[in-house]
Amino acid sequence: MGKSKKAKSEKKDPQTSLLSTINNPADLRKLPVEQLPQVCSEIREFLIQHLSSNPGHFASSMGAVDIIVALHYVFDTPRDNLVWDVGHQAYAHKILTERKDLFASQRTKGGISGFPNPAESSYDSFVAGHAGNSISAALGMAVADTLNPDRKDCKTVAVIGDASISNGLAFEGLNNASNRDNNLLIVLNDNDMSIDPNVGALHRYLSRFSTSRRYNRFRFRTYDFFKRKGYIKEGRKGRVTRLTNSLKAFISKQQNIFEGLNIRYFGPFDGHDVVELVNIFREIKDIQGPRILHLHTVKGKGYNVAEDDPTTWHAPGKFDPETGVRDKERAEKPSDSKALKLWQDVFADTLIRLAKSDEDIVGITAAMPSGTSMASFMKVFPERGYDVGISEGHAVTFAGGLASAGKRPFVAIYSSFLQRGYDNIIHDVAIQGLPVVFCIDRAGLVGEDGVTHNGLLDIAYLRCIPGMAVAAPGDAETLRGLMLTAANTAGPIAIRYPRGKVPKNPEDGDPTPVPMGKGRAIKASPGAQVAILSVGAVLNDALEASRRLEQEGKPTDVYDMIWIKPLDKDLLREIAGRYKAVFTVEDGTVVGGFGSAVCEFLADEGLQLPVQRLGVDDAWVQHASIPEQKAESGIDADAIVKAVLKKDS
Amino acid sequence: MGKSKKAKSEKKDPQTSLLSTINNPADLRKLPVEQLPQVCSEIREFLIQHLSSNPGHFASSMGAVDIIVALHYVFDTPRDNLVWDVGHQAYAHKILTERKDLFASQRTKGGISGFPNPAESSYDSFVAGHAGNSISAALGMAVADTLNPDRKDCKTVAVIGDASISNGLAFEGLNNASNRDNNLLIVLNDNDMSIDPNVGALHRYLSRFSTSRRYNRFRFRTYDFFKRKGYIKEGRKGRVTRLTNSLKAFISKQQNIFEGLNIRYFGPFDGHDVVELVNIFREIKDIQGPRILHLHTVKGKGYNVAEDDPTTWHAPGKFDPETGVRDKERAEKPSDSKALKLWQDVFADTLIRLAKSDEDIVGITAAMPSGTSMASFMKVFPERGYDVGISEGHAVTFAGGLASAGKRPFVAIYSSFLQRGYDNIIHDVAIQGLPVVFCIDRAGLVGEDGVTHNGLLDIAYLRCIPGMAVAAPGDAETLRGLMLTAANTAGPIAIRYPRGKVPKNPEDGDPTPVPMGKGRAIKASPGAQVAILSVGAVLNDALEASRRLEQEGKPTDVYDMIWIKPLDKDLLREIAGRYKAVFTVEDGTVVGGFGSAVCEFLADEGLQLPVQRLGVDDAWVQHASIPEQKAESGIDADAIVKAVLKKDS
Repeated sequence: MGKSKKAKSEKKDPQTSLLSTINNPADLRKLPVEQLPQVCSEIREFLIQHLSSNPGHFASSMGAVDIIVALHYVFDTPRDNLVWDVGHQAYAHKILTERKDLFASQRTKGGISGFPNPAESSYDSFVAGHAGNSISAALGMAVADTLNPDRKDCKTVAVIGDASISNGLAFEGLNNASNRDNNLLIVLNDNDMSIDPNVGALHRYLSRFSTSRRYNRFRFRTYDFFKRKGYIKEGRKGRVTRLTNSLKAFISKQQNIFEGLNIRYFGPFDGHDVVELVNIFREIKDIQGPRILHLHTVKGKGYNVAEDDPTTWHAPGKFDPETGVRDKERAEKPSDSKALKLWQDVFADTLIRLAKSDEDIVGITAAMPSGTSMASFMKVFPERGYDVGISEGHAVTFAGGLASAGKRPFVAIYSSFLQRGYDNIIHDVAIQGLPVVFCIDRAGLVGEDGVTHNGLLDIAYLRCIPGMAVAAPGDAETLRGLMLTAANTAGPIAIRYPRGKVPKNPEDGDPTPVPMGKGRAIKASPGAQVAILSVGAVLNDALEASRRLEQEGKPTDVYDMIWIKPLDKDLLREIAGRYKAVFTVEDGTVVGGFGSAVCEFLADEGLQLPVQRLGVDDAWVQHASIPEQKAESGIDADAIVKAVLKKDS
Repeated sequence: MGKSKKAKSEKKDPQTSLLSTINNPADLRKLPVEQLPQVCSEIREFLIQHLSSNPGHFASSMGAVDIIVALHYVFDTPRDNLVWDVGHQAYAHKILTERKDLFASQRTKGGISGFPNPAESSYDSFVAGHAGNSISAALGMAVADTLNPDRKDCKTVAVIGDASISNGLAFEGLNNASNRDNNLLIVLNDNDMSIDPNVGALHRYLSRFSTSRRYNRFRFRTYDFFKRKGYIKEGRKGRVTRLTNSLKAFISKQQNIFEGLNIRYFGPFDGHDVVELVNIFREIKDIQGPRILHLHTVKGKGYNVAEDDPTTWHAPGKFDPETGVRDKERAEKPSDSKALKLWQDVFADTLIRLAKSDEDIVGITAAMPSGTSMASFMKVFPERGYDVGISEGHAVTFAGGLASAGKRPFVAIYSSFLQRGYDNIIHDVAIQGLPVVFCIDRAGLVGEDGVTHNGLLDIAYLRCIPGMAVAAPGDAETLRGLMLTAANTAGPIAIRYPRGKVPKNPEDGDPTPVPMGKGRAIKASPGAQVAILSVGAVLNDALEASRRLEQEGKPTDVYDMIWIKPLDKDLLREIAGRYKAVFTVEDGTVVGGFGSAVCEFLADEGLQLPVQRLGVDDAWVQHASIPEQKAESGIDADAIVKAVLKKDS
């Protein structure tokens, strides 16, 4: 929460607005370098004004402004490739690349995306929703340039945060970067933070690096000396930087991981001194071979409440630009105790409750303690809760290790990020039948974060794994019951639930176990000839549809199937004998999902029951509000009503 | 190929066989340390004798013998946890842990596995088929031990090779190892090789480390000095090792990556001096906190032809233990030019052919150049072929980067290993619709390597991805045609094919493109009322089944559907109108696979055609020969015949 009642931005009174003259990087490059600080200041003001009313990723975007201005000033974008890692830091990049006037539309249906998107602009070289991919992707572009005669002079820059670089994929990229001659420049935007405070040895290593004041003083003095002597000329740039670099290693007596990987290291430098950044980029630009430039930035830079509390201000929602008070803060008054809880809070409350009576329960997340509410568990059980950083693969295998030693790990990871741990689920958990509970958060449609963050594939990619149970609760009470069941089950279980609020708050007492592989009839309408088989949080839409259908004179029964695997075969046989047709509804892809499981079962049993599968179409769903996405995908109450009426006619 | 006509093992004439007295590590620990070299020698002789007639992973197993003997001698296995990374190095471990008499059964149906398997023995702490998981899994066990009062004194050891440690998952494990107090010891078995020669900066880093003779001389002198002075006592062990360690860093002026990650580093030491290894393990055992011990070994150690050519001797097949001549070598005579080709060779020949006329084609593999035959492509196009090491995720994202820059990457990775690159396929390729061609090798059942290596899930986990085309050729000519089609398609395509030989060698000329989403009738029998819809290499089984069914008086038509996605809907509609029932056959899981896709389509179209899905059951398939696995899974000709006759009756 904002700690101050008055937010102070570094707003100046510009005589003239420079930003209004800039539509693309070519315009920016026309300005003298001395005016760049004002450009940065205007971009920050622009961000504050826009993001206060049209929410987005605030703190990291504010922190990256100066780097972005300097990059576009020095590099020949879009001819040079600029690759973002977790692109929600790149708003200033969008503003400078022909999307300033579209910015108000960001993250809304039909508007520009909150992340870089090559389909949106030629300035966006690559998709950047999941952390750690920038180095590998940029290396691909840099290597491609070495093969293209007309692009041999092009540069490729990857901008990666200190949290992302600790990801295994980023390491694989680093490990391969020096394999071939290439012009890859890696800019490490080190703001000492991911969404949640950073973890891991690499992080501590980078902090040690940063605080070496002794070295920094020395380096600057040396650099100045060479500059004054006129030694810093075209031919010597590389040598000088190399020199200060080795001096650094010598003086600080620190082990340089990057140089160990054969990547030339420069830094750390101040990532907010835009004029100095331009000098550094100019110097480093033409040095051959892979290089890493380490820059220090402050998350939320230029807006004091965000600087003070960057975790809250990662994605603060709407706020008052003058006072820095967030709308959410206003809404979070204690009197609101009857407000609907988040699925995440039900998850955390239940985990804490279960862990109190079962000391084998441990909790794991991968850089999502706030988002998943695992943080609440970690507060109560600091020794039994683990945030492993942006390392989904490690999170899962680590859970496998814990489970093999008798623990009962609950792993809370967003659906789309869990894709990074797919082999780990198969090889390190399921093959051994280990009792790991996957609490799959942000399952289904996620709204404004859009295509890279939607969790639509997990049902399909999990149910094909032998021995894996997969369930999705339709309400909070069922989530609690599933977690209790999972805590007492011998093998791996996945429980998927969405972003947002539960339809009804859960009971206060102990949860009731939900028997594995058992669904339930939830609404019986006299005379119903069709039934909706719902799984997961779309249950509410199914019930709403059924109510409306009843009013339309088409009574329709509703079943909450709960389990995608194992299916409730007895119930399905009963259903097959009772209805003329069924409609399966799920908030995941229709390809290989729950509806397919029902079709498989009917085929295996030789039951000829017409099935219409309602789920998210086999296409990428772009950013919009969740209700808009659900409507577009044909899984809201309206769509269900329409489908039933159409079939019936 | 063996370079010498006479293989020399380091066989001695033991007066008494020590190995015959050892059933488990407790027996081993009864021996005086001076006898351990003889134990190692006898184990090597045992391996040569057994593996020459019952093939397995030879070179890495020979190299790890001394480390394994020393580990079991010093550590209290199985109470202490011993975790293997890529467990095919661990044969000596199996021999020492109650499985010597079962060793002849290894990798055969019903026999012991070629990899560690917790279901097989309490000495096997974790599954170890895919590289890089040991550190994360072992960390889980080590952390669990800190929570269990009765196990606080237990040790956990992860043994990892120099190729595996360059994997992103291993890095994530390293990065998290120092987060909490734990007793994790990482033994880096550095044999300078993975299956194929090692790549990447970390590898070069390790080699630099190893060749620092100056340091090694100094370290040993220092160590000896302290030993002679009697300083190496219980309380000082840690200090002495730390000292030699910092001396190392000081003298070699090398950047120590592991110390940068806050993991204490010891080494490098000779991994074949078993007596010295015992001393080192004893010294390092009780030091608190995560540690890494760097040991140098030689792949194939103790068998000269294998030492000379470790890539060939990774898994040499049968060989003559006296001469070192491999059976394959005898079979690979030039006169055999009419022998059936491997699917892998057809892939490589075709890729080379296509690349000759399309300069945008590049090839990528992840430490499988020999296994996939990508090596042949890399020989012809050294600038356009990339082996990125054991980094499947990076391989895919790197391909995405290349594709985004106009290249047409063909990525050849084994099906089960590609699971590691799952998110990369989705996020870094498919969302952007990039034209990356996934040549999925070892798809289907793989035989002796067993459960961790079977490629049964790829159809299910790929077809749910929007925009991803998925095909499987039934013969070599179709593979060639699919590759040509893929080279000219705008989006991502996966082509899956199995281990082993094609049913018929391909034509010599240019391939004919296989139109996307088009299957074909391949065998029409007059009067047939049922049809087999086959996809992939099981086509041959389907044809054989159809021939037998005809003889049995049950004419059965056969379709080679080729495309799992997009399905040939026109053909399916035609089929639905023509037959009373169809049988889908695929060499992948029945859950969410090709058969499910057919069921989905029929449900969507409201077509009431009985479908029986033949594929691999929803269960883990253990090691056996491929024909045995196919029979067990119900997808060989026999099983198809039986299924059709049963339905018909």
